[in-house]
Amino acid sequence: MMRKIITVSREFGSGGRELGKRLADALGIAYYDREIITAVAEKSGLAESYIEQVSERGVPMYYPITYARTLTVVPAFSGQHIKVLHEQSRLLHELAGKSDCVIVGRCADCILREYHPLNLFVYASLESKVRRCRAREEAGEHFTDKELKRRMAQIDSGRARYRELIGGSKWGDKAAYHLCINTTGLEIKPLIPAVREFAACYFEGIESKE
Amino acid sequence: MMRKIITVSREFGSGGRELGKRLADALGIAYYDREIITAVAEKSGLAESYIEQVSERGVPMYYPITYARTLTVVPAFSGQHIKVLHEQSRLLHELAGKSDCVIVGRCADCILREYHPLNLFVYASLESKVRRCRAREEAGEHFTDKELKRRMAQIDSGRARYRELIGGSKWGDKAAYHLCINTTGLEIKPLIPAVREFAACYFEGIESKE
Repeated sequence: MMRKIITVSREFGSGGRELGKRLADALGIAYYDREIITAVAEKSGLAESYIEQVSERGVPMYYPITYARTLTVVPAFSGQHIKVLHEQSRLLHELAGKSDCVIVGRCADCILREYHPLNLFVYASLESKVRRCRAREEAGEHFTDKELKRRMAQIDSGRARYRELIGGSKWGDKAAYHLCINTTGLEIKPLIPAVREFAACYFEGIESKE
Repeated sequence: MMRKIITVSREFGSGGRELGKRLADALGIAYYDREIITAVAEKSGLAESYIEQVSERGVPMYYPITYARTLTVVPAFSGQHIKVLHEQSRLLHELAGKSDCVIVGRCADCILREYHPLNLFVYASLESKVRRCRAREEAGEHFTDKELKRRMAQIDSGRARYRELIGGSKWGDKAAYHLCINTTGLEIKPLIPAVREFAACYFEGIESKE
């Protein structure tokens, strides 16, 4: 029987992480998100904040080079970047090999392509994402709307950059996902049965072709 | 209680029409697709093929004009185009006012915006769409792969044009839809329970805010 891997890519503030967690609980399978960063940090001896920056926000510098007679832009990899990306990829394969799971972020949809994961994308309107971020703001923490929107845009553009780097395809382009869920104005919890049903169809469809 | 309107936009060959029909059957509500063209033809006295061209494929000519000091491109409307678009919009409002329904195509998501319809977008990989078109080819009819792909691209670009004309937003841009379903390699029938569950969440979410 095939391993069932579900990846969740999401816009910041869309509730994608909650959706991933609840879906894993409903299916009774493993869930990975920040655990991956912690494990990579332990293994590589680098700080978690650094791992997070590389693994979720991409590599900030690019070099123009001439490749096959065309001017191309490639990321300015340092040895440490490569170490982090390599360790993260190794870890994702190890986790996927071990048991069915839901993985949020980390470009798992690209890195684990050979497992035929079900790839979900979770998104929402800007206003809805601002509201969701406000609702989970910690006491004492307060961003203005403008700050919050700038931060959201920064995080998402980092995710987009990382995805292009790893997967070669455009982050958020629906062609790369099996189901794109707009959470604008919706609670996450009641959505789980629908996503679970879709996941079952997807894995049955894949299995019947194996 | 709110009227429940579900609109289905779809790439040609993605199975969106079948999904709309099956969903309407599962929910026990009305389903409209070609019926709309037939009704507009009867009402306007114009040929169905002409209505179809205008209403699904957009208006082929554009004029550049200066509007608010900016050079802009507007569609070259004829009186007949306007008549068709007007009659179609009137008819969609009439149908939506009458009962809950599923409407495939016709930019119903834009035209019926005030009903807060659930907007679905159905898509698939090119290979999958070609396979689906082949499976429903009529006896005696045979397109080469190249012809089929050209025809699919023509139809979809017409749909995109019509949508931009009517709704001002980009056809297929996930932000305009509540759920985007990739049917690549999947049967349509088993997907219906998942879509039905999602629809229930959506209408509950909307209703709780009314």
